[in-house]
Amino acid sequence: MDAWILSIGNELLIGRIVNTNASWLAKRLVFLGFDVKRIITVPDSIDDIVEELGRGLEKAKLIVTTGGLGPTYDDMTSEAVAQALNRQLEKNEKALIMVREFYSKKRLPLTPEREKMAYIPAGARVLPNPVGAAPGFIAEEGDKSIVVLPGVPVEMKSIFEQYVEPYIRRKYNPDRKIAEYFIVVKGVPESELAPFINDLSRRNPDVYLKSHPKGHETRSPLLDIRILVSGLDDKGINEKASRMLSAIEEKAKSLGGTIVEKGRSI
Amino acid sequence: MDAWILSIGNELLIGRIVNTNASWLAKRLVFLGFDVKRIITVPDSIDDIVEELGRGLEKAKLIVTTGGLGPTYDDMTSEAVAQALNRQLEKNEKALIMVREFYSKKRLPLTPEREKMAYIPAGARVLPNPVGAAPGFIAEEGDKSIVVLPGVPVEMKSIFEQYVEPYIRRKYNPDRKIAEYFIVVKGVPESELAPFINDLSRRNPDVYLKSHPKGHETRSPLLDIRILVSGLDDKGINEKASRMLSAIEEKAKSLGGTIVEKGRSI
Repeated sequence: MDAWILSIGNELLIGRIVNTNASWLAKRLVFLGFDVKRIITVPDSIDDIVEELGRGLEKAKLIVTTGGLGPTYDDMTSEAVAQALNRQLEKNEKALIMVREFYSKKRLPLTPEREKMAYIPAGARVLPNPVGAAPGFIAEEGDKSIVVLPGVPVEMKSIFEQYVEPYIRRKYNPDRKIAEYFIVVKGVPESELAPFINDLSRRNPDVYLKSHPKGHETRSPLLDIRILVSGLDDKGINEKASRMLSAIEEKAKSLGGTIVEKGRSI
Repeated sequence: MDAWILSIGNELLIGRIVNTNASWLAKRLVFLGFDVKRIITVPDSIDDIVEELGRGLEKAKLIVTTGGLGPTYDDMTSEAVAQALNRQLEKNEKALIMVREFYSKKRLPLTPEREKMAYIPAGARVLPNPVGAAPGFIAEEGDKSIVVLPGVPVEMKSIFEQYVEPYIRRKYNPDRKIAEYFIVVKGVPESELAPFINDLSRRNPDVYLKSHPKGHETRSPLLDIRILVSGLDDKGINEKASRMLSAIEEKAKSLGGTIVEKGRSI
């Protein structure tokens, strides 16, 4: 199953920002069983976006785009997706409620520019943005999907984890299983364990490791580490996750840490 | 003048590494007067590389590629460039000398895998690699150029700065001028001045700022900052560079630094 990532925005093409969104998404898509065949950065230009969406629709099952969903005139991703799919751009009532709520909480008016963020291609399914104004959406075309996400990393990641990942697993990979284990380590600052975790992560593309610091970083550090392994074989992924857990446990102990808790989450 | 950047390598598509090469190159190309219209990451696959090179040759004056120049079987950039230009891959005598010297200095044998790095498309011009084994090259086709660089960032940057930048300026932008100023600051650690410099750099795409720490980072810091401004108008770029220099001087003094030296380099 091939996937393409489309990164939209002039600021990427002048080198003002590094495209960390693309590598984050690539890692997640590989974890979910996809072969990422292209990461393409295009300018804020309808024709360029439509051109690459057209190619992507021919070659991949899934296209994930980031950027170009905001309120300004140079945010044109929704319009480009509508054109690429030969559909109308429509005011989506659910999206409008989300956008209206976001601004009313901030006591800001719903200007036409802001309302523009509620326009998505006909037939698309809106995705709530838990941390920002612009909703994402999924537009399906036959057995293919275009997933459209904002460019702000925290918004992109949040929508992906909450809505896109479950959607992709259901639609494209119902047989792929995920084992999630956790281990809580006390007494080791995150920065000391990080090189080991990063290295483990790099060497195992089918494993997704997240560490959440909970206590104080240096005085009384508490680290909640999640180990996710994906694959088709239930036994295999559980064994692999257990091995990862043991490796992290051993390393944490060698750094003077103690294990508060560990086990299987799902 | 449009430019494309082609990043070659599976490790970018599985999210193992972030594509910092592309943003570095984009910044330099914008500085040299180009509009970067695409940054495309492709797998280590001849067909994929040839496909995107073909599109790039149709649409851009300049294509810069990174990656896929090493000794292993999955390094296939040279072969792909040869195919895209409909040329033979030939053993290049200058390239062979470079590769042979690199390994003989390390007292390592010239295996067939290593010798492979001396094969470049017929008619291409080899670019010495001052810090690594694989030479780069430039292949011209009419008024278009494909610049082929290794993926290791320090090698890519070194070849670009020493050989590619002068080539590009001569061929594509003989009227574009560059003003270079310098200022040497004493008593401010690089990390304290960095946020200001980064911000200045972000807000001015036509300016290239480099800071080289020379003394000890914290005990007796000495910073050599280079300010490069490019443009068509000699007076304008000099005025802009002077303004940048003054801003940095003021900031450095406010952080307790003293100015050891300042002036115009070119």
